[in-house]
Amino acid sequence: MNKQEKQQELSRLFPVWEQLTEAQRERVAGAAVEASYKKGDTIHNGSLDCVGLILIRSGKVRVYLLSDEGKEVTLYRLKAGEMCILSASCVVTGITFDVHIEAETDLDAIVIDSKTYADLREENIYVRCNCYELLTDRFSDVMWAMQQILFMSFDRRLAIFLWDEYASSGDEVIHMTHEQVAKYTGSAREVVTRMLKYFAEEGVVELMRGGIRILDKQKLRNLSQS
Amino acid sequence: MNKQEKQQELSRLFPVWEQLTEAQRERVAGAAVEASYKKGDTIHNGSLDCVGLILIRSGKVRVYLLSDEGKEVTLYRLKAGEMCILSASCVVTGITFDVHIEAETDLDAIVIDSKTYADLREENIYVRCNCYELLTDRFSDVMWAMQQILFMSFDRRLAIFLWDEYASSGDEVIHMTHEQVAKYTGSAREVVTRMLKYFAEEGVVELMRGGIRILDKQKLRNLSQS
Repeated sequence: MNKQEKQQELSRLFPVWEQLTEAQRERVAGAAVEASYKKGDTIHNGSLDCVGLILIRSGKVRVYLLSDEGKEVTLYRLKAGEMCILSASCVVTGITFDVHIEAETDLDAIVIDSKTYADLREENIYVRCNCYELLTDRFSDVMWAMQQILFMSFDRRLAIFLWDEYASSGDEVIHMTHEQVAKYTGSAREVVTRMLKYFAEEGVVELMRGGIRILDKQKLRNLSQS
Repeated sequence: MNKQEKQQELSRLFPVWEQLTEAQRERVAGAAVEASYKKGDTIHNGSLDCVGLILIRSGKVRVYLLSDEGKEVTLYRLKAGEMCILSASCVVTGITFDVHIEAETDLDAIVIDSKTYADLREENIYVRCNCYELLTDRFSDVMWAMQQILFMSFDRRLAIFLWDEYASSGDEVIHMTHEQVAKYTGSAREVVTRMLKYFAEEGVVELMRGGIRILDKQKLRNLSQS
């Protein structure tokens, strides 16, 4: 990608581009780098690193909590066109928590390193404002996840998860092991297996090797809205 | 409180006061009202109302989630000198969740109504930035609460709760029923009773009518840090 292409991508993916001075644009375009991640790659590992602001060109990012015992809870996902701000959390003093971030699919991105982003935030009130605004959106995502986890019965949670997977891929087969579903729903493998068997008995899904096939979309939808 | 006193209080409690124009200060001082709440009063009830920005002069506010089944989970508390922003959540489009807010003690506050605050946010980038920055601080609070609830063993959670209550009141007796402790720790009454009995057997606390007396602070501290 040459400099001009990078500027073009930045103007498309970085919403405060218009609010930058010419000098700031030059600086950001000079510092920003293309980055590729393979599916499953760790992008951000708790407090250990601070990659910077990630502008997603293609692919999906998953942000999750990880307990000392290895339990994972998915907080939210980001897709092409969105920015990952918690990979630059070291820049924001108000953030006192650590998350883990992984490439959920192969990922293509532009990264503005933490130092450049920190300077920009310092100099430009619109950048600072946009940063906090982004964090507020993520706050909403996390509250949604929290309500799911705390309050919702697991059958409904699982139905919503399966429905969302189907809706986002368009594929009636969800290519995941029970272990993976458990990981993503913040549950235990046994609980997932038990509930999936119940769903299968109800004719909602069919369990197959390495995946789950949705048989009755209407029933699944009803379950997810019950 | 006369106008001058109100302006003085606003300059002390509203951190962006210095960034307002003279006209905006006039407007805010004209619109802001004193408000008093009694301990236990509901300040904000999910999506039903949108009181505005609450600047706490004295007392404590508790912000919590409430499930359809009546289960409560405390997200965070605010004290004198802090601002309650989620009582103005209708003003911020990025917020897609509802919380409940109550006066945890008798409360004295200055309230800037939602309309006035919304206009100010619209006109003044510093007010908007401060609003999102506040929300980021609350995001951190919520993440802390979430990690407590999701990952921590209940004995530790209960010990931390009792320790925090003791630390904030300075009173060795925590005047709460098991029901109330369960409410505040997002747990069930039975679980609280069982764990408190265990703590009592360990000599950490003594259970009394309408309260819990802390007997061994060092042990409680250890439990909360285990």
